[in-house]
Amino acid sequence: MPADLTADAGTRDDTGGRPVVPSIGRLRPLGLREVRITGGFWGHRQSVNAAATLEHNLSWERRVGWIDNFAAVVEGRVGRDRRGREFSDSDVYKLIEGMAWEVARTGDEFAAASIDELSKVIERAQEPDGYLSTAFGHDGQGGRYSDLEWGHELYCYGHLIQAGVALLRTGVDGPLADVAIRAADHICATFGPDGNQGVCGHPVIEMALVELYRATGERRYLDQAKLFVDRRGHGTLADVEFGRAYFQDDVPIRATEVFHGHAVRALYLASGAVDVAVETGDDELLAAIERQWAATVARRTYVTGGMGARHMDEAFGDDFVLPPDRAYSETCAAVASVQLSWRLLLATGDVRYADLAERTLYNVVATSPADDGRSFFYVNTLHRRRVGALPATDRHHPRAESSIRAPWFDVSCCPNNLARTFASLAAYLVTSDDDGLQVHQYADAEVSTRLADDRPAGFEMRTGYPDDGAVVLRVTETSARPWTLSVRVPAWAGDGAVLVGPDGTRRPARPGVASVTSAFAVGDEVRLELPMQPRWVRADPRIDALRGTVAAERGPLVLCAESTDLPAGRDVDAVRVDPSAPISPGGDGASLAAGALVSDDDRGWPYAPDADAGTATTPARIRLVPYHSWASRGPSTMRVWLPTTE
Amino acid sequence: MPADLTADAGTRDDTGGRPVVPSIGRLRPLGLREVRITGGFWGHRQSVNAAATLEHNLSWERRVGWIDNFAAVVEGRVGRDRRGREFSDSDVYKLIEGMAWEVARTGDEFAAASIDELSKVIERAQEPDGYLSTAFGHDGQGGRYSDLEWGHELYCYGHLIQAGVALLRTGVDGPLADVAIRAADHICATFGPDGNQGVCGHPVIEMALVELYRATGERRYLDQAKLFVDRRGHGTLADVEFGRAYFQDDVPIRATEVFHGHAVRALYLASGAVDVAVETGDDELLAAIERQWAATVARRTYVTGGMGARHMDEAFGDDFVLPPDRAYSETCAAVASVQLSWRLLLATGDVRYADLAERTLYNVVATSPADDGRSFFYVNTLHRRRVGALPATDRHHPRAESSIRAPWFDVSCCPNNLARTFASLAAYLVTSDDDGLQVHQYADAEVSTRLADDRPAGFEMRTGYPDDGAVVLRVTETSARPWTLSVRVPAWAGDGAVLVGPDGTRRPARPGVASVTSAFAVGDEVRLELPMQPRWVRADPRIDALRGTVAAERGPLVLCAESTDLPAGRDVDAVRVDPSAPISPGGDGASLAAGALVSDDDRGWPYAPDADAGTATTPARIRLVPYHSWASRGPSTMRVWLPTTE
Repeated sequence: MPADLTADAGTRDDTGGRPVVPSIGRLRPLGLREVRITGGFWGHRQSVNAAATLEHNLSWERRVGWIDNFAAVVEGRVGRDRRGREFSDSDVYKLIEGMAWEVARTGDEFAAASIDELSKVIERAQEPDGYLSTAFGHDGQGGRYSDLEWGHELYCYGHLIQAGVALLRTGVDGPLADVAIRAADHICATFGPDGNQGVCGHPVIEMALVELYRATGERRYLDQAKLFVDRRGHGTLADVEFGRAYFQDDVPIRATEVFHGHAVRALYLASGAVDVAVETGDDELLAAIERQWAATVARRTYVTGGMGARHMDEAFGDDFVLPPDRAYSETCAAVASVQLSWRLLLATGDVRYADLAERTLYNVVATSPADDGRSFFYVNTLHRRRVGALPATDRHHPRAESSIRAPWFDVSCCPNNLARTFASLAAYLVTSDDDGLQVHQYADAEVSTRLADDRPAGFEMRTGYPDDGAVVLRVTETSARPWTLSVRVPAWAGDGAVLVGPDGTRRPARPGVASVTSAFAVGDEVRLELPMQPRWVRADPRIDALRGTVAAERGPLVLCAESTDLPAGRDVDAVRVDPSAPISPGGDGASLAAGALVSDDDRGWPYAPDADAGTATTPARIRLVPYHSWASRGPSTMRVWLPTTE
Repeated sequence: MPADLTADAGTRDDTGGRPVVPSIGRLRPLGLREVRITGGFWGHRQSVNAAATLEHNLSWERRVGWIDNFAAVVEGRVGRDRRGREFSDSDVYKLIEGMAWEVARTGDEFAAASIDELSKVIERAQEPDGYLSTAFGHDGQGGRYSDLEWGHELYCYGHLIQAGVALLRTGVDGPLADVAIRAADHICATFGPDGNQGVCGHPVIEMALVELYRATGERRYLDQAKLFVDRRGHGTLADVEFGRAYFQDDVPIRATEVFHGHAVRALYLASGAVDVAVETGDDELLAAIERQWAATVARRTYVTGGMGARHMDEAFGDDFVLPPDRAYSETCAAVASVQLSWRLLLATGDVRYADLAERTLYNVVATSPADDGRSFFYVNTLHRRRVGALPATDRHHPRAESSIRAPWFDVSCCPNNLARTFASLAAYLVTSDDDGLQVHQYADAEVSTRLADDRPAGFEMRTGYPDDGAVVLRVTETSARPWTLSVRVPAWAGDGAVLVGPDGTRRPARPGVASVTSAFAVGDEVRLELPMQPRWVRADPRIDALRGTVAAERGPLVLCAESTDLPAGRDVDAVRVDPSAPISPGGDGASLAAGALVSDDDRGWPYAPDADAGTATTPARIRLVPYHSWASRGPSTMRVWLPTTE
């Protein structure tokens, strides 16, 4: 039974702030005051994000003029002086959202001061009627909403509102929450039932408005979000070069079979649709998104969890078109996928959604940023064939095809989407329901919350995950009545997982949920042991691009071969592996596979009866490293899917 | 020894007109008065082109405003009224070029009248100093040469000059040849050694200027072409989103290893470079292009001969990135590839170039147009996974991802490039040298020319090719002295070809050139017999996307499976074939392969240790049809590369 969670809504949120706060659902999200990541794989990334990425992003946004655009509006010179793409405002907002979560997480002073400074200039750029854009509506610019296909005005509001909601929920002071509310009121006045019947070329406003409804209780915002969801799919937007499918305006989302078109757009829209479905009790809409998610996972998702196979329109490919060497797998699509999975998990309690979120977090979200948090992959290919040049550090880049992360892009959503995801990541780890707590992601963390009847419940999580498969939950707060501590057992664990109860009993834990119900005492331990022997996986034969290859995984990590680990002058395309031999430890987080290196000679016309005849091979041990770490040791070639010696 | 062919240059060309007339080379091209296609596969396409495509293209160019743009210049309203993309002028010029060849071929009155009408309005739009563009240089437009990256002014001149040269060589009257010469003079004055140091974002001007030099003897045009070739590759153009590689401005062409960037741009540039190399005796440059061609054929070319694997920037992919289901293989790139191969064949005499031209003509150029010559593929994919919708016939389309040809495109170079290729196709069939005649492509045709010392030589070619493998050459003109009649033996024939001499002797003809030297009498026959049993080919294992699949070929034709030939509701992705069994005749030009149909069920997450485990299969005979004919029987799915039952 979905629980009524309405007590959670409203402006005051004593959980410390959460990105998604449904009024109803199977599971209740915990806030940043209730779950803290204390170290380990994700704790390290949170620290780097706080220490480097937030400042890096802010300094680039200054440098490329995106922040000055707001001042230019105030000073009446924006028509002349504006810099950046139509949607650059949104990146300032995404960064503010990330900073708000960081202030909630650690009280970071740089972030607090930056929010304060940015909010003031943004506030001054807002028109009296709530309109706010540096790209439209001023002298020398296009008129308001004159280009809904590409103008991104409502998209920018969406991120403004998400920033405003983060500020409301985390209790960080400043004027931006009011700016967001004025913008939302302006949207409702402009795009309401009797107003402009358009939708934005890039969804996000839908989920933003639902969250603002949840944070303020103002029903109009929910109604407007529902209107935007229902309006889309009827050809309101122009038929652009990529077709209306690009912005999901070809088919209403209720009638869609599988996610399609621009991946970030599709996933943001689906997230907003889940939010609307949950708040309006629209089970049919929720079921439609669940079906689309399942079809997309079965046919249009990379082994990394990455989504989007087409560079041209940053879009999903047709079913089973998943070329590793032309994978787009945009970082922002991964962030969007995690947001969608989280919503579906909260609504349904089905841990398949947490499985995909884990895969996506470890293999796309964690792959994008460099160790120092100051450069990023925009595109997360699964096969890099050429060693790229080091990108210049002093200029922004296109989408980046290099095998090296770049510091900034013409379209720089990825660095900011990463920043807000890392800063709020603790909120995606654990949920509660009337009976207890559910662990969805493993990390060193401390959890402290209240169950129904205000009973305290908490635990400390300790793990060397993803290097080590043991996850220990030690109860730190409890009450006399029994409650249930649940952990997700990932599908990849097969039949290899074991749950150890507080009394030391060991039992097999099948993929899904494993739980212990007990009148826990402080100090009781529940222990999940996951099998960490690397394994070979093969692909559905309908994925033509992967026929005859295997990929290695270890725990939640996808592994890859990188030219850095091969003899000088040899390339990953020479690698063949023997999947019948076990993979052994390789030291330093790496693994070693049995295999061979093949010779590499040109043969003229490459299609002939015997064009695939055997080539000279040299037996070799092939070193495999976590995919998320690739290109950290300089430019390289890399591949995830490896041809076999079979 | 390359022969001196300078007698062929100059305005007067009594051959009837040829697209490429080198001053020096191994082989001499024959003109439209010397070679006529009289029927068969290509004769049919020439008739459809004349009867339908030329008029179709002209009527669309009127309808979408591209022709009115010239009148708008004359009437001073172009800044307001102009329609179409920056390069739309070029399509009017390409069409005129096609019409000029058609007038030379058949005396077509519609074409002659259209050339006359179009030339007059174009002439009036030319500025006194020779500048001619409907997109730049007038009130309300960007200044002349203000956007060399994307403006296409020099590209448009290139096609204007090619049209002018066609008119000069075919002797079709009208003012356009003078317009072209004035434009060329303007270019030399503007972009000469001391002028604007830029190059055009889209090559073609290079080969056009060389041909104008050849047609007029004016050396300045050759010098300017050489300047453009040498200037490119030094980063003169801005670093656009796709990088300078997009327009080959990243590396000088002499230092390039393999064709890269936008495929049509790369192939036009290479063609211009061959022309410059030939006319300036630059053997090093010629050798560089030959090497790049060989590397491109070995690593970056589809089995159809198609080039360009990337939709995003219409570009060559990295080596061995040749996904059949995302093949771009633009029709215009195929036309450009044939132009390049022809130039290399004339310069070197190496029939490998004619082999590729044959493959490209039958499997890309012939694939693009519908039977009625009124709709076209822009993109020639090798694997279509979804049945597309019928395109609207009353509007223009984007690049067209449909499985059905579309009547017109926003960028409509393909229909015009096809028109000029079909109308001039006879000129690509046969060459001469001091010793005789060389047949490079087989077709029903009549050949009549003069060898050295003005000796008459001619033959009639009769064949049912590509359905039938017999090609009969019957001598119709000869002289007392012996001469040599040569035929290309395609590489695909392996050791299966036989040459039958005039005396009835049969001897094996190995791939390359087979020839008979004789004091031929009228009525003598030389007969080439090519093996037409369909064969399976496999791909170089470095083409990851094709691992575990085979393709069928018959003669020069690539075959494919199409859903139209499968049981209702079944799709080509269900097809498996058994390459160990022979392919049998299937009637009506089709073939039948042994194979099976597999079941098609969703399996959730598609990557697992046993994700490629066997599926239920039903034995089936799989019908294979010529790839060029696909999607002629309504929307369908299609694939060339078929997984095996192995």
